Amino acid sequence: MRLLILVASLALSFPSPLLAADMSDATAECLECHSSLAPGMVAAWQNSRHARVSPTEAWKKTELERRISTKSVDKKLAANVVGCAECHTLNPEKHSDNFEHNGYQVHIVVTPEDCATCHPQEVKQYGENLMSHAYGNLQDNSLYQDLVRTINGVQFLEEGQIRITPPSPGTNADSCLSCHGTRVEVKGFDSRDTEMGEMEFPVLSGWPNAGVGRINPDGSKGSCSSCHTWHRFSIEMARKPHTCSQCHKGPDVPIYKIYQVSKHGNIYSSIGHHWDFEAVPWTVGKDFTAPTCATCHVSLIVNGDGEVVAERTHQMNNRLPWRIFGLIYSHAHPKSPDTSVIKNNAGLPLPTDLNGEPASNYLIDNNEQQERRKVLQQVCLSCHTQQWVDGHWIRFENTMKTANEMTLTATKLMQQAWDSGVAKGLAQDSSIFDEAIEKKWMENWLFFGNSVRMSSAMLGTDYGVFDNGRWYMAKNIQEIHDWLKTMLAVTGETSQDAK
Amino acid sequence: MRLLILVASLALSFPSPLLAADMSDATAECLECHSSLAPGMVAAWQNSRHARVSPTEAWKKTELERRISTKSVDKKLAANVVGCAECHTLNPEKHSDNFEHNGYQVHIVVTPEDCATCHPQEVKQYGENLMSHAYGNLQDNSLYQDLVRTINGVQFLEEGQIRITPPSPGTNADSCLSCHGTRVEVKGFDSRDTEMGEMEFPVLSGWPNAGVGRINPDGSKGSCSSCHTWHRFSIEMARKPHTCSQCHKGPDVPIYKIYQVSKHGNIYSSIGHHWDFEAVPWTVGKDFTAPTCATCHVSLIVNGDGEVVAERTHQMNNRLPWRIFGLIYSHAHPKSPDTSVIKNNAGLPLPTDLNGEPASNYLIDNNEQQERRKVLQQVCLSCHTQQWVDGHWIRFENTMKTANEMTLTATKLMQQAWDSGVAKGLAQDSSIFDEAIEKKWMENWLFFGNSVRMSSAMLGTDYGVFDNGRWYMAKNIQEIHDWLKTMLAVTGETSQDAK
Amino acid sequence: MRLLILVASLALSFPSPLLAADMSDATAECLECHSSLAPGMVAAWQNSRHARVSPTEAWKKTELERRISTKSVDKKLAANVVGCAECHTLNPEKHSDNFEHNGYQVHIVVTPEDCATCHPQEVKQYGENLMSHAYGNLQDNSLYQDLVRTINGVQFLEEGQIRITPPSPGTNADSCLSCHGTRVEVKGFDSRDTEMGEMEFPVLSGWPNAGVGRINPDGSKGSCSSCHTWHRFSIEMARKPHTCSQCHKGPDVPIYKIYQVSKHGNIYSSIGHHWDFEAVPWTVGKDFTAPTCATCHVSLIVNGDGEVVAERTHQMNNRLPWRIFGLIYSHAHPKSPDTSVIKNNAGLPLPTDLNGEPASNYLIDNNEQQERRKVLQQVCLSCHTQQWVDGHWIRFENTMKTANEMTLTATKLMQQAWDSGVAKGLAQDSSIFDEAIEKKWMENWLFFGNSVRMSSAMLGTDYGVFDNGRWYMAKNIQEIHDWLKTMLAVTGETSQDAK
Repeated sequence: MRLLILVASLALSFPSPLLAADMSDATAECLECHSSLAPGMVAAWQNSRHARVSPTEAWKKTELERRISTKSVDKKLAANVVGCAECHTLNPEKHSDNFEHNGYQVHIVVTPEDCATCHPQEVKQYGENLMSHAYGNLQDNSLYQDLVRTINGVQFLEEGQIRITPPSPGTNADSCLSCHGTRVEVKGFDSRDTEMGEMEFPVLSGWPNAGVGRINPDGSKGSCSSCHTWHRFSIEMARKPHTCSQCHKGPDVPIYKIYQVSKHGNIYSSIGHHWDFEAVPWTVGKDFTAPTCATCHVSLIVNGDGEVVAERTHQMNNRLPWRIFGLIYSHAHPKSPDTSVIKNNAGLPLPTDLNGEPASNYLIDNNEQQERRKVLQQVCLSCHTQQWVDGHWIRFENTMKTANEMTLTATKLMQQAWDSGVAKGLAQDSSIFDEAIEKKWMENWLFFGNSVRMSSAMLGTDYGVFDNGRWYMAKNIQEIHDWLKTMLAVTGETSQDAK
Repeated sequence: MRLLILVASLALSFPSPLLAADMSDATAECLECHSSLAPGMVAAWQNSRHARVSPTEAWKKTELERRISTKSVDKKLAANVVGCAECHTLNPEKHSDNFEHNGYQVHIVVTPEDCATCHPQEVKQYGENLMSHAYGNLQDNSLYQDLVRTINGVQFLEEGQIRITPPSPGTNADSCLSCHGTRVEVKGFDSRDTEMGEMEFPVLSGWPNAGVGRINPDGSKGSCSSCHTWHRFSIEMARKPHTCSQCHKGPDVPIYKIYQVSKHGNIYSSIGHHWDFEAVPWTVGKDFTAPTCATCHVSLIVNGDGEVVAERTHQMNNRLPWRIFGLIYSHAHPKSPDTSVIKNNAGLPLPTDLNGEPASNYLIDNNEQQERRKVLQQVCLSCHTQQWVDGHWIRFENTMKTANEMTLTATKLMQQAWDSGVAKGLAQDSSIFDEAIEKKWMENWLFFGNSVRMSSAMLGTDYGVFDNGRWYMAKNIQEIHDWLKTMLAVTGETSQDAK
Repeated sequence: MRLLILVASLALSFPSPLLAADMSDATAECLECHSSLAPGMVAAWQNSRHARVSPTEAWKKTELERRISTKSVDKKLAANVVGCAECHTLNPEKHSDNFEHNGYQVHIVVTPEDCATCHPQEVKQYGENLMSHAYGNLQDNSLYQDLVRTINGVQFLEEGQIRITPPSPGTNADSCLSCHGTRVEVKGFDSRDTEMGEMEFPVLSGWPNAGVGRINPDGSKGSCSSCHTWHRFSIEMARKPHTCSQCHKGPDVPIYKIYQVSKHGNIYSSIGHHWDFEAVPWTVGKDFTAPTCATCHVSLIVNGDGEVVAERTHQMNNRLPWRIFGLIYSHAHPKSPDTSVIKNNAGLPLPTDLNGEPASNYLIDNNEQQERRKVLQQVCLSCHTQQWVDGHWIRFENTMKTANEMTLTATKLMQQAWDSGVAKGLAQDSSIFDEAIEKKWMENWLFFGNSVRMSSAMLGTDYGVFDNGRWYMAKNIQEIHDWLKTMLAVTGETSQDAK
């Protein structure tokens, strides 16, 4: 009882229903220490739905309103709210980070497989999402590893040349893997003095991390807390664009910046404070009047009559016909979320050839694209007419095509540089990413091409023109051309085309 | 009755007054289908003032509180709320997009001329606003068309040279014309299967679009929904800076970014949630304590005694003595909103010469500038002393001058490049925008000069130093100089000055 | 009485307690004119705590809740709310801007020394903050002055070379000194026609300004209103990150941008509207669940048991072991807030040598660093485990090290350029900041190195990779290397290393 009062006193002052179910004795015991050791962590949970609702109660909702997808929950979990102990003691046999702690076998890293206890459908879907494979898709692709090396490695001078020290795991964890996810492994156990006396804890590599494709100590992939931030697990937060912006804001994938200058983003910023971000299902018109990222890509959307506009999906790509993040061109979406298996016609681990030809065997076909487009457009049609949507889509596909054509021109110039030897490429057993001119070429597709395409997709066209888009894409080709002319002149080399 | 209930159920849950006036039978009929076909569109309207107030009621307000400016409304419109049918059936004789739809003659594109039925003064003022001419000001200026071509056209290689395929209408609609407005024309009629059976619709070119200078099927210019987003038409939204940011955020016109780092923007972001963005008139101190874009440039502002600080204006430039968007230098504001008529002394369609001389015949004179400055400064003086305002203004005009001087230096270097032939300019019948070095020169005034001036005007000086301002302007000149030296050395050309 | 009613009518409509104490007769007299002359200014104050609470009442709070730090207040100030007259008439003997105004001796510029009447501890602490010395730290450092000249000076051509006209005081006030603070001096007195008739006012140089290191007419340094914006002095606003962003958003110090893409910033943006930004002390978990800038760097933080997690500090650097704003490398924090006294081993006014060696005599030692780290980490430990915090810190210090190593490589290349004469440096009595290649080198540490370090410190790693971080740092070195090779080839010069 003392504990309940203590915890309640930590709760934020905005309206929260009374505790409808009790917490377990085990969780109460956790809170006895952790309420004062890490009050912010406990308060986040206390303000969460997990702290107020038991799985049994969650099940009483109608199917559309229900937030859990399991058909049955273990009896010993069913009646209590979802507290510390409920999650941090699940599946002990699978968790290499499991350890004895005050008489309990607990683990630090709660994983999608743990969350699947109540949310199996979401975890299954997420397993089909590219993001759940973000670690391997980066780490098991030799070309991307080469890219990581040339970005993160420490450059030094040796005999007048620039050499690169490969980046340490710590450097990668502090950069790429912060979003992609680290590999979290138990490296031993360590004894530590705490306020509660000497205690032993597992020592984790790659920790902390909440990347979308984290490799967990139980072997599972991903981290639900990437979007459902620990320990609040707020659906409001997951539905707001700021969550996506954590990883999708840089020039390579500027979707948050584009959303901000779009009409949709403007509506969200201007009048979104009137909306209900907690409602399940999410009713277009009633709960919100313009989409956030989640609306189009994830959420269960219904119309005012309660009819489903779009099913909830944590796979996401089942609403995505195209992959407009160009590598190096945009292309039909990959069939498998594991993109490390892809080989293009030239044998490179890329979804397109350097000349733009897609690696079609690994990509969805036109029928599947039509199907996905239809699902996505159902969301658009909640507010727009068919003519509106068709008009938008025609422009978008035209822009994909022209952006690809621009990248092809830049790549032809780069190919001349490689062929003539003024830059070193694959034929010289060299990285195609490590020279200054190669980085300039990469910006053509990785920064500017992506910006142009994403701006078109999301109606943030101001961004796609001057902010990091067509202006720079146009200038980029001219600069590569100028560089090539000058270098050929200086070195006396000739290429097939450049004069 | 059934309909009223259905629609009410779509309304957002924040407080909204009861329906004070009835909707027309025609609008009720529209909603019968569209409530379920496009619930988001209907809900936006349902949450709008248009859904609650009839023109007659709008007229009962005091003059300062009144939101309509017509002296009289057609009897058949006066008593009902402003619903679908009220707007989408206006002026059928003028609308080439008019078509028969379920027994009504309707049109898709509601235009300023339609809005003028109730808001004639605002539409008239907007006709004097540069923005209403944004389509022609871009499309009818040969120099700007050349610029559009070199940004949006697809570049390809031919005999070692870069060639440009002129951009398609779809490409331009997806980029420049997204803000400037497209030309929306009826290209025929098309029959389509709908949930309501086979129906015929006009096929529109340039659609969708809500650009500020859109050329409409009734021949009118502009789109009120650029700022008063359809179908909510929210004054809260129009007054918030996010609306302006849709078009004014890129490096060419970074006013939203500058506002964000200004003291004014900070106040808005930090405590603006306490303000009343719906009040008409807008009382400084009571409804808000720092300006948004609309405060200085558009809104009817009164002080606590109800005295007018600034009259409402949709012309906007009557509060603007200077045009600080440099083309290529800043200058007194153009006399006419149609800038395509301007010719500088050299005969180019620019408001200044390449050496900075203004095309004075086409620009307002000093007296008019004084008048406009006075109107604008009345807003400043609501919170600041005269000495404060004067001190700010002196700095601002000094910064305009020095930024112009920097552009002059960059232009002199560019002129040497053209004169010596290392770049091709007007004398060689060539575009002055299509070479890499020319794009670099353009960034001097279009990106950096504009950033410096706008930062000074709006007190976002952090932006004007490092973000895209003085740092880059200084570096830009040095880089052009280095490039010129190198090119002259390589080609053996000489110029008058560069050595 | 009339006045009280007038003022109340200006107050915003959100809940505000009744006026608990009376305003002084002098303040009432001020308001008699200024309520209508500058209603926004008066309304800001009216909505402030200053307008509602007297020093005596402020003292009645418990020590942790207390917002004033003086032990005693002059009797004539103690009983009234803190109004216009209370601040603008303080310390008349020290204020050179003091003047007779309607029978009162008033001054325009309220200074930290004035604020110290009630807030002596905060003012004393702020005097130890680098920011209070921001004017002199820039103006009294010959190297930085050289930098200011090359950024702000107007460049012109003379005999084919670029020359620089030194920037005017107005230009510097409109750029660097906007944040750093101007020197505000009385340049005379001027008579002006006002609505109240002819009046005399002091003429101030460097006005307006609210920079953090402003030199005031009473000789004091700083401006409390930089963060506690006049005349609201809102703690809500000072605690929100937008306030810091006014000066900390550019590529040189992009902390706001990094915060925005961090998990912390995401939580603030998504659910911060639920928090209490007014509470003193600030209770972690109860009042907020993720930090803003102020949480880690300034505020008095307590846990749910009311135990102090971090003492309030306006010195700030007592929570900062490192200075990660690299000049030109990151280093232990300076001992004195007056950094103009620092000389590195080479005698330059920089905290590190060009080869990275710290100017240790002027920097805090390891013990002091440990102490400060401990204080800072107490805030982290409110929500995170020790292992989490340690893991984060190890990465952060590794990133500081690698970013420094990258800058060393860039600097070695630059040194070769200086040694070989293809660029002019200190040995040639030339600025090391004025050539294009030197500006490129500066971007390595001033823009990219700082971005990488700050991203690591604040968990905004997406920013630190592509947005302005590792990508650019890597490319920057390669570009300098390419430039050097080309220049040496063109000029026939040789250097020790570059071939």
